[in-house]
Amino acid sequence: MVPSPPQTAAMLAIGDEILSGRTKDKNIGHLAEVLTLAGIDLKEVRIVGDEPRAICDALNTLRRAYDYVFTSGGIGPTHDDMTADAVASAFNLPIGYHPDAYRRLEENYRTRELEFTEARKRMARTPQGASLINNPVSVAPGFRVENVYVMAGVPSVFQAMVAQVVAGLPQGQAIMSETIVCPFGEGEIGGPLGAVQKAHPAVMIGSYPKFEGNRFYADIVVRSRDAAALASAREAVEAMLAELAAKR
Amino acid sequence: MVPSPPQTAAMLAIGDEILSGRTKDKNIGHLAEVLTLAGIDLKEVRIVGDEPRAICDALNTLRRAYDYVFTSGGIGPTHDDMTADAVASAFNLPIGYHPDAYRRLEENYRTRELEFTEARKRMARTPQGASLINNPVSVAPGFRVENVYVMAGVPSVFQAMVAQVVAGLPQGQAIMSETIVCPFGEGEIGGPLGAVQKAHPAVMIGSYPKFEGNRFYADIVVRSRDAAALASAREAVEAMLAELAAKR
Repeated sequence: MVPSPPQTAAMLAIGDEILSGRTKDKNIGHLAEVLTLAGIDLKEVRIVGDEPRAICDALNTLRRAYDYVFTSGGIGPTHDDMTADAVASAFNLPIGYHPDAYRRLEENYRTRELEFTEARKRMARTPQGASLINNPVSVAPGFRVENVYVMAGVPSVFQAMVAQVVAGLPQGQAIMSETIVCPFGEGEIGGPLGAVQKAHPAVMIGSYPKFEGNRFYADIVVRSRDAAALASAREAVEAMLAELAAKR
Repeated sequence: MVPSPPQTAAMLAIGDEILSGRTKDKNIGHLAEVLTLAGIDLKEVRIVGDEPRAICDALNTLRRAYDYVFTSGGIGPTHDDMTADAVASAFNLPIGYHPDAYRRLEENYRTRELEFTEARKRMARTPQGASLINNPVSVAPGFRVENVYVMAGVPSVFQAMVAQVVAGLPQGQAIMSETIVCPFGEGEIGGPLGAVQKAHPAVMIGSYPKFEGNRFYADIVVRSRDAAALASAREAVEAMLAELAAKR
């Protein structure tokens, strides 16, 4: 049986505060890790500001190019939260209160004896036909339209939503990876490492330079969905490093 | 005199290791802060893997849409460093050793009594006609082609290159910003804050929820290039918060 090709994903992080440098994004790295473990390939990330046109255009490109799109940010109760409207306009759908989301929020505020303000009601708005993504942290749900998963920007809420969403997706075969710490700089290993890559086309070999004090070394990362190919490439890298060390 | 519109920028971060979650990007937040101080608006960020086609396509879109494009990553000596070739192909330029880059690297390795390997020579390759960006940390330069600035992914090197590049650009009028800590959750301020935004169109008012323990509060950030408009919006936000507090 030929294994089905890995599923692909993109992320769209939304918010002026990331582009101004005021907030340092923590969600991209988190989603990347979770998807890698689930065997889903994150192929592209975009960050745009709180501009409906920019959000809508990016969404339309990404949702057509990849199996899944995950968004973060812009679903709160304030005027600068524009994601729900932008998603509706990307799918050309009307937007309104989602009955179940409305009920959850209404009940939450009643229990807490807080007014269910117009602003708070905004968090119940979704494009028509969206399904909800639960928010175990602070009630206001995210939602899904087709292959687009719309989640909060607050990291604790984003993480809780991602856990749920990814658990519900068909898991792919995770890429296995091994890291070989290389005591030489990339300039020394570049030639022979390229040869190892050529001889092992079923693995992806990456080299990540580290700079400490005043010298470079590197992590060599070998990745594959094929365990035998991975082991063989790892051996080849280690043999290459041993040969270099012997020459010194 | 009508002030010229602010200059715009995009960033393209390149590397499989960011998309796999193995490396957490530190360069986006840094560039965002530096550009904000320089009065240049960072409008979009993309992250793509070490794939020449993906790099080339993203570059061609971004360089046409924004005044400047800044890239990070993929200019080292190993086989997975593909940025220089992708930039050349985006501009449809031949690629080869840049004489000055070659000389700097050759001299550096001679001084350190290290072999100037084929892999190390790769770091002297640029699209024809590129101008160099100095690397005060580890010699191997970045380069510029038209409005695209190609820089290293190692944060200390990226930061040194960004400092140089941005110092050489015409500085815009920086956006001033003030943060007002808001003791109420966004659901409570959403309505009146939207009204303040409407009444102050020359400022951008953002609201950034924080979640601590089991309650939300928010930072309200007021931003503008117009000092008087900023002060007036800030006063309006503070008056709005005082009114809310008095109602409690």
